[in-house]
Amino acid sequence: MEPFEVHILGCGSALPTTRHNASTQIVRIGNRQFMIDCGEGTQLQLRKSHVHFSFIDHIFISHLHGDHCFGLIGLISSFGLLGRKTPLHIYAPSPMEELMLPQLEFFCKELAYKVHFHTIDPSKNSVIYEDKVITVETLPQKHRIPCCGFLFKEKPKPRHLKGDVIEFYRIPHYMRKAIKEGADFTTPEGNIIPNRNLTSDADPSRSYAYCSDTLPCPQNIPLIEGCNLLYHEATFADDMKERAAYTHHSTARQAATIAKEANAKGLVIGHFSSRYTDETQLLDEARSIFPETWLADEKKCFIVT
Amino acid sequence: MEPFEVHILGCGSALPTTRHNASTQIVRIGNRQFMIDCGEGTQLQLRKSHVHFSFIDHIFISHLHGDHCFGLIGLISSFGLLGRKTPLHIYAPSPMEELMLPQLEFFCKELAYKVHFHTIDPSKNSVIYEDKVITVETLPQKHRIPCCGFLFKEKPKPRHLKGDVIEFYRIPHYMRKAIKEGADFTTPEGNIIPNRNLTSDADPSRSYAYCSDTLPCPQNIPLIEGCNLLYHEATFADDMKERAAYTHHSTARQAATIAKEANAKGLVIGHFSSRYTDETQLLDEARSIFPETWLADEKKCFIVT
Repeated sequence: MEPFEVHILGCGSALPTTRHNASTQIVRIGNRQFMIDCGEGTQLQLRKSHVHFSFIDHIFISHLHGDHCFGLIGLISSFGLLGRKTPLHIYAPSPMEELMLPQLEFFCKELAYKVHFHTIDPSKNSVIYEDKVITVETLPQKHRIPCCGFLFKEKPKPRHLKGDVIEFYRIPHYMRKAIKEGADFTTPEGNIIPNRNLTSDADPSRSYAYCSDTLPCPQNIPLIEGCNLLYHEATFADDMKERAAYTHHSTARQAATIAKEANAKGLVIGHFSSRYTDETQLLDEARSIFPETWLADEKKCFIVT
Repeated sequence: MEPFEVHILGCGSALPTTRHNASTQIVRIGNRQFMIDCGEGTQLQLRKSHVHFSFIDHIFISHLHGDHCFGLIGLISSFGLLGRKTPLHIYAPSPMEELMLPQLEFFCKELAYKVHFHTIDPSKNSVIYEDKVITVETLPQKHRIPCCGFLFKEKPKPRHLKGDVIEFYRIPHYMRKAIKEGADFTTPEGNIIPNRNLTSDADPSRSYAYCSDTLPCPQNIPLIEGCNLLYHEATFADDMKERAAYTHHSTARQAATIAKEANAKGLVIGHFSSRYTDETQLLDEARSIFPETWLADEKKCFIVT
């Protein structure tokens, strides 16, 4: 199976600390790399992570709070200095483009590549990106300002050919694509060989859901049902649930409850308040509800499996 | 003497590396802290350096290239989250204010403190800041866009009272300030005690000059003559002097020559090109001209003495 990984470049909240940067992630699927959010210092963190700058063509911004987008201008500028030629696509709620254009015009006059802004509607669930392999959907969130999460889903994959059977029937190359997609094979003698004899099951399609910043959103559970990995913000522990509700954030317990109800296969919690100098309390709390929970960290990469 | 120190928060050039951040410094004089330039990630670096956020009231921006100012919006925003009440003054060439205002209006609507922009003219030498203890002057630089350095100068200091002599003549407190400033003392009997008998020499006034980004500017030498510490950019080694000239930067040799001709007491070189994975070549080159040279580094604090 192709790699499907989530590299955490930042998992702190509004105030950076010596332990955590502002929110940024890289989702790697095969040789594609997508960025989610782009907090200040993202380009520095990219350098440290050794993620290859030039493979990032699509950046998804969840909402326009500074800790999720102040790194964009520096990143765009450095891409230019590094000689980038391929277009960069930024998907973000309004008015991202309006805010960025005057800065780009002043600071990035000589870019040799195009920056395309795609305004997304964070209030509804829709597919905002699609290629041969994956789709990316918005997940409406409940925050103080318009905000959405993102669901990365692999498309259904072709079935695997059984090499020896294909060989035995001398099935020509041009027919194999159709067989991978489920077609039967008719021999020159007119015998029908059913697909199940020719192929084995396709690899399962994996999915990754990113939910930050938000109050718990049970209405999204059908959308993320069975996802292989869920990143859910857990800014606070449950003893601060009033503060979480007031600031439109979630607690570790609430994040774990969403993961459990959505039958997620794994949960990563992040967006930690700067008040925690150690997130053990958050981890213990989440694991008491959903044992397959891990803490996000700038040094970690999670495998979507 | 009061402390007078320069904390390096960033000394890389346009492209950040794993070793160096974009340009930022803190000049500490007594209990005042002034910031020079504010590259992306400054607030993160401040956290690491344990410099106290709330004592920074004045920020001086040399020029509007991103690596010298992209950290402003995040810093201003975090000051707000930290409950800052005291005004913040930003001194920068035009159009800094025009570029920042739409961002401040959108991202920092609820700031409980005022941000004052002071537009400076980088093409001439003038005093742009003054308090009881110091002045800050612009130093015109030669860069691709309008740019200036900054000269921090302590004002002349009062002479030291000779405690035992003051005691002997029972000089009342209200007269001591004038004596510190050079006045003689007349005894009740009418005898004049000359100031030199009552006081010893004042501490020398120290100065720190920051020159980045720039071609060598010999015309500034009279302005920085005898400065206690000179920070001068040395983006390249001298074998790249054509590239330095083309990009309007200096080489280590050129920086050292300026320090030598200005009779500086010490030189710190910085703004290193990302091509150097070790700056020994730059240091050796500068020291061959001006032995009292040191390399800037994010872990270093230089004493102005």
